[in-house]
Amino acid sequence: MKKGLKIVTIGGGSSYTPELIEGFIKRHHELPIRELWLVDIEAGREKLEIVGAMAKRMVKAAGIDCDIHLTLNRREALADADFVTTQFRVGLLEARIKDETIPISHGMIGQETNGAGGMFKAFRTIPVVLGIVEDMKELCPDAWLINFTNPAGMVTEAVLQYGKWEKVIGLCNVPIISSKNEAAVLEKNEEELFFKFAGINHLHWHKIYDRDGKELTKQAIEKLYGPDAEPEKMVENIKSMRFLYEQILQLGMLPCPYHRYYYMTDSMLEEEVEAVNGEGTRGQVVKRLEESLFELYKDPNLNYKPKELEKRGGAYYSDAACEVINSVYNNKGTHMVVNTQNRGAISDLPYNSAIEVTSIITAHGAEPVHFGAFPSAQKGLLQVMKAMEELTIEAAVTGDYATALQAFTLNPLVTSGDIAKVVLDEMLEAHKEHLPQFHK
Amino acid sequence: MKKGLKIVTIGGGSSYTPELIEGFIKRHHELPIRELWLVDIEAGREKLEIVGAMAKRMVKAAGIDCDIHLTLNRREALADADFVTTQFRVGLLEARIKDETIPISHGMIGQETNGAGGMFKAFRTIPVVLGIVEDMKELCPDAWLINFTNPAGMVTEAVLQYGKWEKVIGLCNVPIISSKNEAAVLEKNEEELFFKFAGINHLHWHKIYDRDGKELTKQAIEKLYGPDAEPEKMVENIKSMRFLYEQILQLGMLPCPYHRYYYMTDSMLEEEVEAVNGEGTRGQVVKRLEESLFELYKDPNLNYKPKELEKRGGAYYSDAACEVINSVYNNKGTHMVVNTQNRGAISDLPYNSAIEVTSIITAHGAEPVHFGAFPSAQKGLLQVMKAMEELTIEAAVTGDYATALQAFTLNPLVTSGDIAKVVLDEMLEAHKEHLPQFHK
Amino acid sequence: MKKGLKIVTIGGGSSYTPELIEGFIKRHHELPIRELWLVDIEAGREKLEIVGAMAKRMVKAAGIDCDIHLTLNRREALADADFVTTQFRVGLLEARIKDETIPISHGMIGQETNGAGGMFKAFRTIPVVLGIVEDMKELCPDAWLINFTNPAGMVTEAVLQYGKWEKVIGLCNVPIISSKNEAAVLEKNEEELFFKFAGINHLHWHKIYDRDGKELTKQAIEKLYGPDAEPEKMVENIKSMRFLYEQILQLGMLPCPYHRYYYMTDSMLEEEVEAVNGEGTRGQVVKRLEESLFELYKDPNLNYKPKELEKRGGAYYSDAACEVINSVYNNKGTHMVVNTQNRGAISDLPYNSAIEVTSIITAHGAEPVHFGAFPSAQKGLLQVMKAMEELTIEAAVTGDYATALQAFTLNPLVTSGDIAKVVLDEMLEAHKEHLPQFHK
Amino acid sequence: MKKGLKIVTIGGGSSYTPELIEGFIKRHHELPIRELWLVDIEAGREKLEIVGAMAKRMVKAAGIDCDIHLTLNRREALADADFVTTQFRVGLLEARIKDETIPISHGMIGQETNGAGGMFKAFRTIPVVLGIVEDMKELCPDAWLINFTNPAGMVTEAVLQYGKWEKVIGLCNVPIISSKNEAAVLEKNEEELFFKFAGINHLHWHKIYDRDGKELTKQAIEKLYGPDAEPEKMVENIKSMRFLYEQILQLGMLPCPYHRYYYMTDSMLEEEVEAVNGEGTRGQVVKRLEESLFELYKDPNLNYKPKELEKRGGAYYSDAACEVINSVYNNKGTHMVVNTQNRGAISDLPYNSAIEVTSIITAHGAEPVHFGAFPSAQKGLLQVMKAMEELTIEAAVTGDYATALQAFTLNPLVTSGDIAKVVLDEMLEAHKEHLPQFHK
Repeated sequence: MKKGLKIVTIGGGSSYTPELIEGFIKRHHELPIRELWLVDIEAGREKLEIVGAMAKRMVKAAGIDCDIHLTLNRREALADADFVTTQFRVGLLEARIKDETIPISHGMIGQETNGAGGMFKAFRTIPVVLGIVEDMKELCPDAWLINFTNPAGMVTEAVLQYGKWEKVIGLCNVPIISSKNEAAVLEKNEEELFFKFAGINHLHWHKIYDRDGKELTKQAIEKLYGPDAEPEKMVENIKSMRFLYEQILQLGMLPCPYHRYYYMTDSMLEEEVEAVNGEGTRGQVVKRLEESLFELYKDPNLNYKPKELEKRGGAYYSDAACEVINSVYNNKGTHMVVNTQNRGAISDLPYNSAIEVTSIITAHGAEPVHFGAFPSAQKGLLQVMKAMEELTIEAAVTGDYATALQAFTLNPLVTSGDIAKVVLDEMLEAHKEHLPQFHK
Repeated sequence: MKKGLKIVTIGGGSSYTPELIEGFIKRHHELPIRELWLVDIEAGREKLEIVGAMAKRMVKAAGIDCDIHLTLNRREALADADFVTTQFRVGLLEARIKDETIPISHGMIGQETNGAGGMFKAFRTIPVVLGIVEDMKELCPDAWLINFTNPAGMVTEAVLQYGKWEKVIGLCNVPIISSKNEAAVLEKNEEELFFKFAGINHLHWHKIYDRDGKELTKQAIEKLYGPDAEPEKMVENIKSMRFLYEQILQLGMLPCPYHRYYYMTDSMLEEEVEAVNGEGTRGQVVKRLEESLFELYKDPNLNYKPKELEKRGGAYYSDAACEVINSVYNNKGTHMVVNTQNRGAISDLPYNSAIEVTSIITAHGAEPVHFGAFPSAQKGLLQVMKAMEELTIEAAVTGDYATALQAFTLNPLVTSGDIAKVVLDEMLEAHKEHLPQFHK
Repeated sequence: MKKGLKIVTIGGGSSYTPELIEGFIKRHHELPIRELWLVDIEAGREKLEIVGAMAKRMVKAAGIDCDIHLTLNRREALADADFVTTQFRVGLLEARIKDETIPISHGMIGQETNGAGGMFKAFRTIPVVLGIVEDMKELCPDAWLINFTNPAGMVTEAVLQYGKWEKVIGLCNVPIISSKNEAAVLEKNEEELFFKFAGINHLHWHKIYDRDGKELTKQAIEKLYGPDAEPEKMVENIKSMRFLYEQILQLGMLPCPYHRYYYMTDSMLEEEVEAVNGEGTRGQVVKRLEESLFELYKDPNLNYKPKELEKRGGAYYSDAACEVINSVYNNKGTHMVVNTQNRGAISDLPYNSAIEVTSIITAHGAEPVHFGAFPSAQKGLLQVMKAMEELTIEAAVTGDYATALQAFTLNPLVTSGDIAKVVLDEMLEAHKEHLPQFHK
Repeated sequence: MKKGLKIVTIGGGSSYTPELIEGFIKRHHELPIRELWLVDIEAGREKLEIVGAMAKRMVKAAGIDCDIHLTLNRREALADADFVTTQFRVGLLEARIKDETIPISHGMIGQETNGAGGMFKAFRTIPVVLGIVEDMKELCPDAWLINFTNPAGMVTEAVLQYGKWEKVIGLCNVPIISSKNEAAVLEKNEEELFFKFAGINHLHWHKIYDRDGKELTKQAIEKLYGPDAEPEKMVENIKSMRFLYEQILQLGMLPCPYHRYYYMTDSMLEEEVEAVNGEGTRGQVVKRLEESLFELYKDPNLNYKPKELEKRGGAYYSDAACEVINSVYNNKGTHMVVNTQNRGAISDLPYNSAIEVTSIITAHGAEPVHFGAFPSAQKGLLQVMKAMEELTIEAAVTGDYATALQAFTLNPLVTSGDIAKVVLDEMLEAHKEHLPQFHK
């Protein structure tokens, strides 16, 4: 890898970009970026210009020698790239809002990456990512693809299995947030704990060990979900973190926040219905947040990441991407939780699946820390979700209606039967513009 | 095996017993039964006496030399038995009705062997079966256990894994009925078709081949579930057989009738709610049927299986048990679909699981015809259901509340969250008398 | 399949052909063969004419309406065939004799299908079989390939994995001979025993059950290999059947005769060296036998299979081929031991491997009776041999020298190191004419 | 773990002990050892006293506050230990010499840890280790067992599976030596390379990556085994490192030195025969070395590890043990190659096997870096060797003769047949004193 990196960010007009820029600035002493290309599509031109201008201000303020390029020409950007990061949203927040509201209107969970909504996000995103991979094969065959576009697990699996591209690492901020939070409630220094995560994106479990080798998982469960859990020790969104204590104890592992959709389906749905009737879905809230963020970004004096970005929800996401790039470039051996190929690390899942797992990040990629087999409770949910992902990815690639219906049927958050077909049909119609493969 | 068999039927007072007797009579030329012991408990004494008297009349009318013993003393009966069949219902039909009505009252599927109801049937039944196995180890260690007590798959797995008893074959009439029905719609002779079943009890799929090696699966799907499916070609209960045609086509295999609960959850629930508000649940209907059957059985002139028994729903069940016994005794090599240990026959399930699979029935037991791996749509459902079964069996044996809650959470027919706990608690209370392991 | 079958036999000039003809004649009432095409190559023209003329006499004497065609044009013969059987020997017996003598001259086992010799037979045969498969795809895409060309297991695996042809059944006479022999020493009727075979071609183990379900494996071991084993109860070649009794007992299963090469390597080698210095290798003996057989076949009055053919060693081979064809054509469900795809039937081997296993032969192919996992002693040998086969097949297809060397190294009958390379080089040179893929 | 460690070394009279002491002294600033107990048996009393006295001098010279206890009472020593290391040799070097010479006298490889010799070392060692584990369960149930007694892989597996003791890490110096050597020939700094090892003890393969993520495996193969390999770049014992270049290239991985026994069996045997007729076997050489070492150790002025110990062959062994203890105690996350439980890290081996694999050493034990599946050439050898180990361990525990014979048959370094039995019998007799389980 030549010194002086070329980094390309697809979806460069995203509101997250300032965190990415901040992350690169913070690491500049060890991560010498020569060029950063922010790529977007015509529909994102305005946002790209706003956030791009701000990125340039940030770099300038930091006194760093790095060229920032803004372009709508993806192929021009990809030529000879060293790292390609993806953070785009096909159909923008409008599409997310449909993913949320249509299922809810039929009494089902409507969510960005879970249930029917998550599957439609995969349908829209996977073909675009596979197109990027095809370009990369031609234009930057030695580059790493660092994906943090959701659904990050299915995207990684599609890149590996259908794209036949091995240099990919998928990223999510959930394990980072959980680790920070749990270190806090355990009153420990995060660095001295060993977090062992395994599962799939947005559906993983983990254990915690302290510096004496003592497992602290049960203590963390007690502190976070036990009868005497003190609300102030929990994360911002307290309500959403509620679980049935005895269930989490039986797992013997810490759940991820998204498990609430599968373990507390009833109250999660109730909350969603309330939101729709109140402040709106998360997508609607985020849309308002984004608008005000871009208003801030327009300020020609703003040359640092504004605090307001944290409310956006993707905290640590872009920073994690910077850290992965840094670890690969400098062969740091950092322990991070990433999406990578299973190859037997989790015995309960197919060999070629993408999993999310604690890994050592090296210059030759992610080396998973081995996990093995899960107990029945975890295993069953994991396996049905992975089979659902396989069908979703296949449907995303082929546009086959029956395969999509089958994926809907397996998804625990979709009610099976005629209603599943009704929701599927309504969403296929609503997202028609971004799903050419289903409308051949 | 000495000539002149001793057969013991636990739950001998069942309304099915006349079919069993008829099955033995029909096979008497090759299956020389010396003694048949009908065993029941105190609560079933009256039914045992009625059906026992009728059994004696049937045997006498057939002119067969076979002693029929009626007893409430299980251990006396088991001594030196050659075959033990089980067909009992812990808690009688009253318990089944609770299994049906409580979940329905909370908006969930309430069913004898599926959803919350099926799990509670397992909780009540498994400890009793394991007790029988303990007696058998002592009193008839060479006998075969032929189980057709539901849930037949979980009972078989419990006997294998917790009872450590290998001479067990679990039975269900569903594959028999499906095969007969499909041969009919294909206008073929059942004997010349090869039916290849694999899965677990009440959740299996199958393929059909004709005598020229041509696969007829798709034709059968078309005839049964296609757009032009003629109602008169379907089974008695037409409505219940409805599936989404494109979904079944995508499977590439024929579903079992119970798949409706998982593939058509919405309309199945609707139907159940209607039934509760109308003629009652299936258990309530069956209870009335049973009462009138026992009235018939009391007729001192009735010495054959009355036609009315067929409406009872368990058609072919007892006959299948007779055929398994016959095949084992005479090493016939009959192809039957039974519950037996997986040992890799279905790649997607654990090695030690019980599966339901087309097998060759020999004197040394069931030899499964090998199956291999399922496509994603079948695999996902099968794996989550097996994990749910593992937890259910474990909870049945240990009485552990959290394990039961975990099984509830995995079950696709139970809504997860607080409501699952409410249903679990209500059912634990309702069945308290038959669940000592949960009320220690 | 149209009535009136067209059968094509590649290697039709083989001395086995009369047994094949006899087998077809014997089954003519249920197997209506319209045309039988005997195909050979220029080098086999004379033998084809002799044996072809005799085949015509046999059919005529039997009064059967079946056209026998002799041809050197394989493609003409394959057009619209229903079954294709293969029984050819690339390089004729001269090649076999090299396979035997070269390894022996270096102090290693030299054998037709085992050790270095067997690997070279695979190197020569697999490309020819794959060529036949290519022709079949074009000329008779619905035909079954019944292979009894050795090494039958590797050929079947190559057809499945490299030829991508699923309608293949591989055959061997060893299980047939073992079953007959063991029924005899057990003084039982073969039909009433259940033989459960599993493993790979020429390296399988089996268990025996009687009609009461009692396992007789140990009794058969005792009778055949026990301290009081009576020589007259053993097969023709007594000496060769010697095993270490305690070893076979520990297996808990009956070995196949070829296990002697792996379990009694020292005495087998000694015997081979003696043979070389005496009557010659088996190939040399067979060559003399074949010559005298063809002298017999020339007799224009001979119109039946002469008794002398039995000494040839391939007894039951061709008859088994006829029986497989009969079972497929008539969907008989016969239990036979054949080579087919594993798909998990033997847990210790890869999913896509060819295995040799007791199967039900139906019109849609071989349905393996499930086996599961082997104990350590069987497992270790089976796994190293399968890996050796994988490398051998790959080397046969690619002609890669290092892959061949790796296969030599894994083979337990080849001494590793410089000597392996010496033998490999000498054999590559000796068989140069038939190994174009290694001499590009 | 309380500050101030108690460490117990079983086999404390070993000539390696000074390296262990040196290792502890070197790490004293982070590894606060309060007590070190050197334990030996009556037969080793003299050596224990000599080396123990020297250990005391070393600690004193280093000015460290650590009590060294010498004892023949193992149970007294184990009480409340934090770490137990094992480095004993049942039967002393006399037994090793028998392990070497008896097989060689029958024309087979005679070696400390490979072939018949290695199996007998397992037979003698495993029961003793399991006895230590039983004592540990009672006397120090929270201690870690750090085993570097050979055969380290089989001992680790026995401890895990038969001893049911999970806190065990097995150690070998081979990966350390290979890594150092390969870094040298690649002219790289060892710290900046990533070595990925997987396999079983004394039979593993590895890959090397540099700090830019480039795989250097092929370069290392070229430098070490290529046509232009410069002798001076190889390890001390040049001759022994010879491999067939094309074979290693085909592997695509670096072999371990012990692979020579399996890949170059002919020349290794030749070398052994020469040694027997010359300077003696390795055991005989080591015995002379040990005698002169103990002469040195007697010197009351010697208070440091003498250079002569390096020739002993176990370089880095004891140092590695110190480093493992240090990493566990301080939760360092060091990458080391250790023997631990598979749980799917290597797909080709059973879930419960012990494997040797690059791991992260933490306070809660070894976390393997995931490996996945091997290509055929590695897989076949690995699987047959693991099955052989399973049988060897079982025979060591049960003393079953036939199981031992079966292990002999599977071992690629033992000629099968009557000769295997002869060697087995001769060795069972020769080691009778240390094999009570076989002489019940």
